[in-house]
Amino acid sequence: MAGPEDHTTASDEAPNTLVARRLGIDSQHEDVVFMRADCHICRSEGFTAHSRIAVGFGRRTVIATLFQTTSDILAPGEAGLTDGACNRLGVGDGETVRLSHPPPLNSLRRVRGKVFGEFLDRTAAGEIIDDIVARRYSDIYLSSFITACSARPLNSGEMIALTSAMVDAGQRLEWPHHPVADKHCVGGLPGNRTTPIVVAIATACGLVMPKTSSRAITSPAGTADMMETLAPVELGIDAMRDVVDCEGGCIVWGGAVRLSPADDLLIRVERALDLDGEGQLVASVLSKKMAAGSSHVVLDIPVGPTAKIRTDATAKALAASLTSVADAFDISTRIVISDGSQPVGRGIGPSLEAEDVLAVLQGQSDAPTDLRDRAISLAGSLLELAGGTIRGCGSVVAAEALENGSAWAKFQRICEAQGGMRIPPRPSHERPVPTQKPGRVAAIDSRRLAKVAKLAGAPNAKAAGLKLHVKLGDEVEENQPLYTVCSESPGELSYAFEFVAKNDDIIETVEP
Amino acid sequence: MAGPEDHTTASDEAPNTLVARRLGIDSQHEDVVFMRADCHICRSEGFTAHSRIAVGFGRRTVIATLFQTTSDILAPGEAGLTDGACNRLGVGDGETVRLSHPPPLNSLRRVRGKVFGEFLDRTAAGEIIDDIVARRYSDIYLSSFITACSARPLNSGEMIALTSAMVDAGQRLEWPHHPVADKHCVGGLPGNRTTPIVVAIATACGLVMPKTSSRAITSPAGTADMMETLAPVELGIDAMRDVVDCEGGCIVWGGAVRLSPADDLLIRVERALDLDGEGQLVASVLSKKMAAGSSHVVLDIPVGPTAKIRTDATAKALAASLTSVADAFDISTRIVISDGSQPVGRGIGPSLEAEDVLAVLQGQSDAPTDLRDRAISLAGSLLELAGGTIRGCGSVVAAEALENGSAWAKFQRICEAQGGMRIPPRPSHERPVPTQKPGRVAAIDSRRLAKVAKLAGAPNAKAAGLKLHVKLGDEVEENQPLYTVCSESPGELSYAFEFVAKNDDIIETVEP
Repeated sequence: MAGPEDHTTASDEAPNTLVARRLGIDSQHEDVVFMRADCHICRSEGFTAHSRIAVGFGRRTVIATLFQTTSDILAPGEAGLTDGACNRLGVGDGETVRLSHPPPLNSLRRVRGKVFGEFLDRTAAGEIIDDIVARRYSDIYLSSFITACSARPLNSGEMIALTSAMVDAGQRLEWPHHPVADKHCVGGLPGNRTTPIVVAIATACGLVMPKTSSRAITSPAGTADMMETLAPVELGIDAMRDVVDCEGGCIVWGGAVRLSPADDLLIRVERALDLDGEGQLVASVLSKKMAAGSSHVVLDIPVGPTAKIRTDATAKALAASLTSVADAFDISTRIVISDGSQPVGRGIGPSLEAEDVLAVLQGQSDAPTDLRDRAISLAGSLLELAGGTIRGCGSVVAAEALENGSAWAKFQRICEAQGGMRIPPRPSHERPVPTQKPGRVAAIDSRRLAKVAKLAGAPNAKAAGLKLHVKLGDEVEENQPLYTVCSESPGELSYAFEFVAKNDDIIETVEP
Repeated sequence: MAGPEDHTTASDEAPNTLVARRLGIDSQHEDVVFMRADCHICRSEGFTAHSRIAVGFGRRTVIATLFQTTSDILAPGEAGLTDGACNRLGVGDGETVRLSHPPPLNSLRRVRGKVFGEFLDRTAAGEIIDDIVARRYSDIYLSSFITACSARPLNSGEMIALTSAMVDAGQRLEWPHHPVADKHCVGGLPGNRTTPIVVAIATACGLVMPKTSSRAITSPAGTADMMETLAPVELGIDAMRDVVDCEGGCIVWGGAVRLSPADDLLIRVERALDLDGEGQLVASVLSKKMAAGSSHVVLDIPVGPTAKIRTDATAKALAASLTSVADAFDISTRIVISDGSQPVGRGIGPSLEAEDVLAVLQGQSDAPTDLRDRAISLAGSLLELAGGTIRGCGSVVAAEALENGSAWAKFQRICEAQGGMRIPPRPSHERPVPTQKPGRVAAIDSRRLAKVAKLAGAPNAKAAGLKLHVKLGDEVEENQPLYTVCSESPGELSYAFEFVAKNDDIIETVEP
């Protein structure tokens, strides 16, 4: 680290520069710059606490929130930076950074326009998304844009504009193959972890399927969170290409390859708000598919009273939006509307869902049949859509790939190619939730079950979540466990149980 | 400060406590807690960077955002706190704080309900406002609520619910007098600083007028910002009561007396978003009036092409909402729809507007006549509404109080009673903007003029803003100055001029 003399010299020579100091503070997505309250730049530029400030180093700039210091944490002439800001700038301790007012955010008038009902055209969407990807939006602006798109639902033209803007703001993969197969589940159904099985079957049957998945938005686990318990998923584009060249497919985290990077920045705020409206959902799904270079996509929409999509009418409207926007971008789609009345499989949470996936792939006798059947149906649809399998025969071909072990063998090779297969971590704390009233299981609230799993620590704590012991229609006796809550810490287990205690009707039973 | 040994002991004895350390960091409204990434509480509770954490001390709790440290800023067993968090908790260096998960924010489902078009009833509004006032909402939630109320405009019932919730969340003043007079301008017109003049006239004429004003929302100056250049405005309730007992009136900042404190928390985010929809505007205005104990209120609504309210139809709709909600709370109102086609007076910015106010009160020969006329009209309406003056005669009585010096004498006494009269600061940097094209002034864009004043530093820099040299209809010659930009720093002056250079049509001239 440079001494105080150096700092003074740097400051004297260039009035709007300070010497960077890495403070060893992790503020995640939010870049923060710390400056002394008596700093000459704060005075001359009129910076006050919580101002947004442009911090430049070389050719890079980040927009950071200002925290002012009145203690001896910083010496005169120093600017403290959080780890994220240092990394994004590529700046080290003792190097000189420039501080200035950030340029006005002209795209905010586009956000306001949307709030008041103006059409979000390609220009407007592009200005907003470009500023988001450049990390110029504070949480306040991200939240306003997301809320406006839910309160003033996007129409088809707006979805196309937003999708196109999101694709153009990131990288775009191109493959020497055709077709390039893909699938996506419009979330909301805990445990519905068909993707790894579908990729294993499809690639075992010769399709090319370079699958990029996301982490959880509002659920206890995204496919990427679950897959990470079985193999590395944060592969760069070159590594991903190598895996696909070798094995015909992969299951990686889309964020690591910067496909539609706006989506990842929006998802964090959508998760906090528990809002992802139809327009954002369509743009999120299809921008990832386009950027991933997919040509043929099967879309699974589970419908149920506590799923994300609750009625057939809503599912059909969403299906129509997805199809029309996909058509505009020359992507062939097949929509599968599936039963979303209860969770799929037994586990909810990254590791617990991975156990179910392994059971199906390995053909274990106690493997959850609902997960197996759904994966076969989706893989079958994909084989028909992209693989030339005769309509009506896809499921038979898919089931065969599971039964003859070729899908399981392929899955293991993909995991090895991604960096090595892992054993999912086990929870250190477990506690069953017994039934209150014997009878027949009549309703399972997927949303509140997901909440229990999240309170228990999922998806950040990989082994956390719950194991479901009953399905709709099962007969249960008094004190028979309905589900078992799993966590990695006692604090989180008791936190989940505070909620469980107030919600004894998550699984409802009736007289048989 | 306690030594490291003490920290270890404290941690060993009570697993979820740490020793507080005031870091000397100002993060304004956002409370931040710093914890070591290897802290046992982070592990056991599953806290990660940017988690929201409840920090407790004695009977107080704040919800803070977690920044994790990997350097030696904190010793093991310590929790660093920003100044605001320390102040709100009343905690000192070395004292023990408790750390835990904050309770779930149940009111967020009310916000989501509003996003999706549900009626915002009194219960929903109450839950949201109570959580806001308890500072449980991050910027993401505040922004979503504000955006939802603009994208799904509040109806009359929702405005009454929100107003009532906002009043109940703060203090409520009661006065031994009746009537209690008040006025409010539905903003958007730079320089329209009639309040101090109206208070001076009304109280000189015997009305009781305990005026609480707000700071700027999206404008370069609020009445409180301007008044602060002439006298202290951050008076507590007792001090305010003393001033009103002595002088019959006051002009103080409403935030300091915690009237409708939710409003002040919402305003900061509304300012960042440049959004304040009709419903929030009505609730903001009337909750302050109710909490201030006002019984008779004159409401000024300026209408003009670049004012906040742009058409007579919008003004009438707003007037109807204000009147109907006021009626529901037994407040007598008179609406004055005024000319909002151009700024009022000459100054824009706290100090510069104060100069205009002083000129009118002192009866200076060059005092801006438009400001004087508007103040007389509003004071006259108030005398008729609350003072028993015969309808049609209010303006005559008001003008007389200005001319005979009684209003000016009263204003000085009020300033002295509030803590002593001040001389407004002068700008240290000025630069005129000359006309490009000689002719007659045909249009003045109040919004972009306000933006120039804000870029120059207003309202934070009290002396910053601009002086307007022309009015609609004036003839101007080539290079004659149209307005002069004023600032307290060269950086802000040049920043304002970058915008001016790209906007040479803020004041438009036509061939005479």
